[in-house]
Amino acid sequence: MTQTRTQAQMQADSQDSLSIRKADAARWFETLRNDICARFEEIEKDAEIDDPQACHSDGQLSGLLDAGQFERKSWQREGGGGGEISVMHGRVFEKVGVNISVVHGQFSPEFRGSIPGAEASGDFWAGGISLVSHPHNPFVPSAHMNTRFIVTSKSWFGGGGDLTPMMPAAAEEALFHADLKACCDAHDAAYYPKFKDWCDEYFYLPHRDEPRGVGGIFYDYLDSGDAEADFAFTRDVGTCFADSYSQIVRQNMNRRWTSDDRQKQLVKRGRYVEFNLLYDRGTLFGLKTGGNIEAILMSLPPEVKWP
Amino acid sequence: MTQTRTQAQMQADSQDSLSIRKADAARWFETLRNDICARFEEIEKDAEIDDPQACHSDGQLSGLLDAGQFERKSWQREGGGGGEISVMHGRVFEKVGVNISVVHGQFSPEFRGSIPGAEASGDFWAGGISLVSHPHNPFVPSAHMNTRFIVTSKSWFGGGGDLTPMMPAAAEEALFHADLKACCDAHDAAYYPKFKDWCDEYFYLPHRDEPRGVGGIFYDYLDSGDAEADFAFTRDVGTCFADSYSQIVRQNMNRRWTSDDRQKQLVKRGRYVEFNLLYDRGTLFGLKTGGNIEAILMSLPPEVKWP
Repeated sequence: MTQTRTQAQMQADSQDSLSIRKADAARWFETLRNDICARFEEIEKDAEIDDPQACHSDGQLSGLLDAGQFERKSWQREGGGGGEISVMHGRVFEKVGVNISVVHGQFSPEFRGSIPGAEASGDFWAGGISLVSHPHNPFVPSAHMNTRFIVTSKSWFGGGGDLTPMMPAAAEEALFHADLKACCDAHDAAYYPKFKDWCDEYFYLPHRDEPRGVGGIFYDYLDSGDAEADFAFTRDVGTCFADSYSQIVRQNMNRRWTSDDRQKQLVKRGRYVEFNLLYDRGTLFGLKTGGNIEAILMSLPPEVKWP
Repeated sequence: MTQTRTQAQMQADSQDSLSIRKADAARWFETLRNDICARFEEIEKDAEIDDPQACHSDGQLSGLLDAGQFERKSWQREGGGGGEISVMHGRVFEKVGVNISVVHGQFSPEFRGSIPGAEASGDFWAGGISLVSHPHNPFVPSAHMNTRFIVTSKSWFGGGGDLTPMMPAAAEEALFHADLKACCDAHDAAYYPKFKDWCDEYFYLPHRDEPRGVGGIFYDYLDSGDAEADFAFTRDVGTCFADSYSQIVRQNMNRRWTSDDRQKQLVKRGRYVEFNLLYDRGTLFGLKTGGNIEAILMSLPPEVKWP
């Protein structure tokens, strides 16, 4: 009897601890979203767009003299939970979306088998943040960052960040990789090589035999046994990405570009679309499970060419 | 012995007849390609682009004063056969591709099960023509046509044509459907209702709960037992599409449009991309079986926006 009560107590403690971890993660994703949006709005203000005609040969880009601001829209999920989309159409960021969501419910029977710990009941909880940035200036790389906490009968963190320059960008690439390596190394020396390779393998277009960009890090199913440490690493990935990418944007946002540069950028963006619609697990999973279309397809570039 | 020779003779006759049918089909697809390319080049010449600035607010559209001409490029398939891409970037047709191919070989084991008659040896032969048109003018609908002859241990025809207006186009839609109905009815009264429904079902984006366009006809596995009749129907589908679509293009190509119309067109084209990369069987099959990337992705619009 005593033992039974102790087990029940332990289970209750574990449930309480899980509830706290979920709440902490959800709060973090919101904090990171707020921080990133504020920083990107600062970048918009700091851009020197003194002669828009010289920088932008495309007469369709409007409002170039005004610094952009994020617009926010919330959505509810029918099965439980919801999210917030933050999107900005600015003068530096042609389109940038920073989405957070906390959803819960039950995976449909056909998906349960592919999600660890969901085989039996299908119950899940998922919180996360997802960012995709498509800057105007062809010399400012596009970028993507996503981190998430998933709970079924198991629980784990996943995420990563990667860079997609539209033009050769050796210095930016080196900086980005070095920043992510430092972030990983502070937690576990084994992380960076593993997560870098995983990223290169994931963001790859087999039909073109081309990587989507220059990589970064990608990790999933991270459950080291120390949930606090995994959460701390996940927080650092978000912060490190925000620092590194903000620096890369600032370093390049005032460079002059030609309509030929723009053309290369628009064609390269086509590869981004091809990857996201043909291969990206999150996109396909979201579309096929009734996710929020606007949030999922926020990743698609504002303007693209397939000449 | 006599009977055995007769059976062998019958089999040889059947092989000869199949060889003739393949050659006839391949020749037809080439004839149709030549006819359509010549007609579209005539349309380019006949367009009245007297004041390009009034029609085209987008300064990036170049060469608007010159009538377009098709450029041809051939490709070889590693496993056997090949094809020809014909693409035109003109003043009426912003991008139009008319591709023919004749390929043969063996399906890989994982595909055999999903192709009728390929289960055992995996041997196949496939000839076809595929057309996708993306006009400049938002009032000229986009369109797609494809017909094909497939031979495994079975053989059948498939194909269809469908229209994707970028702006409301009730008259064009009615004309297109009436033309296809007349084409079908001349062969079998049951064809049109069946193939129209099949088209509506096929060209549909479940994630947006939207049709890709306004439909047309779609048919597959057509093997009525009279291969000559099936081939004649397939020829008529190609000719009827060419007639009907040419008329629709000519009726609308000189209409004036605004940058707001253009914006709507570019956004609507995004749905075309989403359909082709997320759902189109031909696209996914081609990309995953090492098809010619340039020919397969010829369907993607020249310029697209996801605002």
